[in-house]
Amino acid sequence: MASILEEVNEPKDLKELSIDELNHLAGEIRNTLIENVAMMGGHMGSNLGMVETTIAMHYVFDSPKDKFVFDVSHQSYTHKILTGRKEGFINKEKHHSLSGFTTPSESEHDIFKIGHTSTSVSLATGLAKARDLKGGNENVIAVIGDGSMSGGEAFEGLNNASVLNSNFIILFNDNEMSIAPNQGGMYSNFKELRESKGTSVNNFFKTFGLNYYYIEEGNDIESLIDIFRKVKDTTKPTVIHLHTLKGKGLKWAMDNKEAGHWMMPASFDSEAMMKMPTYEKITSQFLLEKIKKDKTIAVLSAGTPGATGLTTDFREQAGNQYIDVGVAEEHAVAMISGMARNGAKPVYEIASSFSQRTYDQLNHDLAMNNSPATILVFGGSIGGGDCTHLGMFDMSLMSNIPNLVCLAPTTKEEYLAMLDWSIEQNSYPVIIRVPKKVVSTGKEVSFSQENCMKAVIEKQGNKVALLGLGNFMALAKEVSELLASKSINATIVNPVNYSMIDKDILHQLKENHDLVVTLEDGLLDGGFGEKVDRYYATFNMKVLNYGAEKNYNDLVPLAEVYNMNRLNAEQIVEDILNNIRK
Amino acid sequence: MASILEEVNEPKDLKELSIDELNHLAGEIRNTLIENVAMMGGHMGSNLGMVETTIAMHYVFDSPKDKFVFDVSHQSYTHKILTGRKEGFINKEKHHSLSGFTTPSESEHDIFKIGHTSTSVSLATGLAKARDLKGGNENVIAVIGDGSMSGGEAFEGLNNASVLNSNFIILFNDNEMSIAPNQGGMYSNFKELRESKGTSVNNFFKTFGLNYYYIEEGNDIESLIDIFRKVKDTTKPTVIHLHTLKGKGLKWAMDNKEAGHWMMPASFDSEAMMKMPTYEKITSQFLLEKIKKDKTIAVLSAGTPGATGLTTDFREQAGNQYIDVGVAEEHAVAMISGMARNGAKPVYEIASSFSQRTYDQLNHDLAMNNSPATILVFGGSIGGGDCTHLGMFDMSLMSNIPNLVCLAPTTKEEYLAMLDWSIEQNSYPVIIRVPKKVVSTGKEVSFSQENCMKAVIEKQGNKVALLGLGNFMALAKEVSELLASKSINATIVNPVNYSMIDKDILHQLKENHDLVVTLEDGLLDGGFGEKVDRYYATFNMKVLNYGAEKNYNDLVPLAEVYNMNRLNAEQIVEDILNNIRK
Repeated sequence: MASILEEVNEPKDLKELSIDELNHLAGEIRNTLIENVAMMGGHMGSNLGMVETTIAMHYVFDSPKDKFVFDVSHQSYTHKILTGRKEGFINKEKHHSLSGFTTPSESEHDIFKIGHTSTSVSLATGLAKARDLKGGNENVIAVIGDGSMSGGEAFEGLNNASVLNSNFIILFNDNEMSIAPNQGGMYSNFKELRESKGTSVNNFFKTFGLNYYYIEEGNDIESLIDIFRKVKDTTKPTVIHLHTLKGKGLKWAMDNKEAGHWMMPASFDSEAMMKMPTYEKITSQFLLEKIKKDKTIAVLSAGTPGATGLTTDFREQAGNQYIDVGVAEEHAVAMISGMARNGAKPVYEIASSFSQRTYDQLNHDLAMNNSPATILVFGGSIGGGDCTHLGMFDMSLMSNIPNLVCLAPTTKEEYLAMLDWSIEQNSYPVIIRVPKKVVSTGKEVSFSQENCMKAVIEKQGNKVALLGLGNFMALAKEVSELLASKSINATIVNPVNYSMIDKDILHQLKENHDLVVTLEDGLLDGGFGEKVDRYYATFNMKVLNYGAEKNYNDLVPLAEVYNMNRLNAEQIVEDILNNIRK
Repeated sequence: MASILEEVNEPKDLKELSIDELNHLAGEIRNTLIENVAMMGGHMGSNLGMVETTIAMHYVFDSPKDKFVFDVSHQSYTHKILTGRKEGFINKEKHHSLSGFTTPSESEHDIFKIGHTSTSVSLATGLAKARDLKGGNENVIAVIGDGSMSGGEAFEGLNNASVLNSNFIILFNDNEMSIAPNQGGMYSNFKELRESKGTSVNNFFKTFGLNYYYIEEGNDIESLIDIFRKVKDTTKPTVIHLHTLKGKGLKWAMDNKEAGHWMMPASFDSEAMMKMPTYEKITSQFLLEKIKKDKTIAVLSAGTPGATGLTTDFREQAGNQYIDVGVAEEHAVAMISGMARNGAKPVYEIASSFSQRTYDQLNHDLAMNNSPATILVFGGSIGGGDCTHLGMFDMSLMSNIPNLVCLAPTTKEEYLAMLDWSIEQNSYPVIIRVPKKVVSTGKEVSFSQENCMKAVIEKQGNKVALLGLGNFMALAKEVSELLASKSINATIVNPVNYSMIDKDILHQLKENHDLVVTLEDGLLDGGFGEKVDRYYATFNMKVLNYGAEKNYNDLVPLAEVYNMNRLNAEQIVEDILNNIRK
């Protein structure tokens, strides 16, 4: 058969195809995905499982009038290919022209920018309610995977979807897998439903009063078209439970569902990566040793253990001292508060971007109860990637909550000393912002209760003081060296804690400094630098703040983000020279 | 029968009582609650429904070894009476000695400070997991009402509770009522369970793999004791579904379940209150008029319509343009984003304290999609009440998120102009922080896109500039008057927007001012004042910031909170005089 994909440029091009042709198209798209994702990196398994579903969706429904909302939207590659964006997957030179997520600026077929889990049902209920108020008649379809279903927002959405009393379709893509294996009691019901081919009377979705259909062959285009035709224009909120195969068509991805969920680009040197020291590996190793010596220590993840280095090997060794709560970041924070209040020593690992889900739990459940638990924030850094995963909000989010002790280590030794102290202490909830790049001094560092509220002068100079927080200690050092070449002997301070300022040190700096420079690898607004500004607001001390301006930079290369924010050492030195008394 | 309550001072005093005596005690406690709550104000209906359950809990289980976690903990009055704190309810002079919520500093029987919904199951799983790691054998019991069950955190907790594989008991207190009537599809299943006396095969709790018991007579002590004895020391996570009667024993509270949920003190003059203008009333009236003219406008609440003035009358008149999503703050924010993206004009009313639940939805679902929805934040103000409801975090939480336009009106006219503009505009997600006290100038105010990023000079003076944000414009005026008596003609600025600073006006101020004073009715950390500090950090301008220091002040009288934070006009003037060039 000739290429169908070549002829398909928008959804209407599908409408006249035969089932055979649609199947052929599915094969072509699958091959394109396998080649493309292997080449440029991205979400592999989740997209391979969604090829047929997406083709059938665009065959039966009429996007953009009918509205698709993809949960997380990491599985929307086929949707992109079918809505005018196949070049980004076929043409090597355009491989990086697209976001990996639905993006309204790319296409009218993308309604929302989405990159976090469990939001699709709620967002889609809003589309449906607006339609009902306006008197429209489009179909609203939320596509959500089994992994996303364990998040509280998804549940709140389900509970509200069922009372819409109008057209609303949820495609529940059940591939029996979150990123990591699914966690939680509801998955036993999904299993029951799969095993009974959807006939089990005890039915999670029906308890919400939702209509329910089960499709065993969730990768069979004909079955999918049949059921979509049946529910199109339904006037009752309806769930279609699709049993799909994650990684379909790529044996390696099917056999390695967790590893195959997301792939590094082909150019990526995985052997070098294996050898490279990372904080993920350092942390896992350290925690494994601690765990073996103390059965009250436990390590938690909310469905993303791989992202923070909690490998399958770690999980096996940790046994019941490892807890994956599924995609349920809020629950994880409340749970560690409970664990700490009952004498255990929990360590919760979370990515900066997903920590955004936990503000009230950090505030009300953890900090207000002053529960001595430890949270390790990974990936907290000014990012140059997709605006859904910027990693720059966590400090502003966490550091303004009372009681939380937020620490930003600058070296491996400092980090491990802080982590060890945090696990063993009984006084505070502690956040440790795990640095990005491993810097090891080889010198042992001790850390105790006294240290956690104290900044450290790394180098005593005068005139200019550089406060290099966490990741940006390296930048402070770079700036210091440049300044030295201009005969300025800058002081370097490690602030250590970013939820407070060390007033003693800031006071000391007044003596022989004209300018204080704060450097933080995160959002300026509500960040550490502004706390320093407040301290000096009534003193005759100039302060320059470096960090990220408040913007959703989407797919802006990191170098450009740095340049815009004047985060290069040369730019900073230029500003410093303009701001000190000549 | 002689008083039993007089003899009961701690849980062990219950253990030898007969069922008759326990029933007598229940009557005494109920009378005490009715008298006490009517006198001092507080949660009435919810506590009246929990008297028997709490007695039976303390009769069968052994607190504090066995651990009770009360969701929201507003229903814990009987628990307090039975655990050494009855004086706070009996002795009029001690009426205000207790928190209305569980509070560890009051008693070892209170494990957590709790005031937000839907947290109990998650917190309790932490207690249980810690017990299992340590090898303990205490019972862990979470008490959660049907209203709290619709919150995502509760769901995440349920999904994880079921996999604990050890002792864990959930008392599901189903009085068929949230604060307002329950909302959502799951409530149809709870009804099915009640009507089938728990025998329905389709069972929300069983879909999580939880053990399940139904007790029709949830206010019958004997039934309660029986079932608690049966599940005590269970090794399988278990739900006991208790059908209880909200407001039991007080006809008025039973007949008026929503009004009876929480009562004002007897001293409260409800007639005067009815006549007093409030922003709740002003808002409802304004929105009703808007709604009648435009069917695409809708008003949302997350289970707390009464708290923001959305009366039953309002709800009836608004019809399908009023949406209560139940206790599901996250869903509400995602839903309004969806509504706005599909051409509707949603207005979501939320209390400051509960907005803490929505950081990621504000950031990822709403602001990143730049959806032009309106959020009205009520009760945003430095509080003197329970630390669970301080109302001071919302500005720091919201104002540092990109794209959000956060407005702080100072008068009724300004507020309504902003609200009208926000509903009709199509450019930004807008937060309006509804002021506390109605100030009406009678002068019409116009507000347009241009205004939303511009501060306003209310009075041009020199030397000292007072930036009075929202509620604190009144304080700025008070300070200005005091300064006038010292021959200082201060400039007064209305910042209008607190998610950005108006650099033009701040620049102008440099000309003839030595000192800028920021006044904000919220947390200083991450707040508006620090943005002003950052702007002036390299200029020769002193800035004084007023607001709340980062602390969980619990039941500290407001006057004391003001005094500690130097928020009295006299204190501020003293500081100003100390900071200007003589």
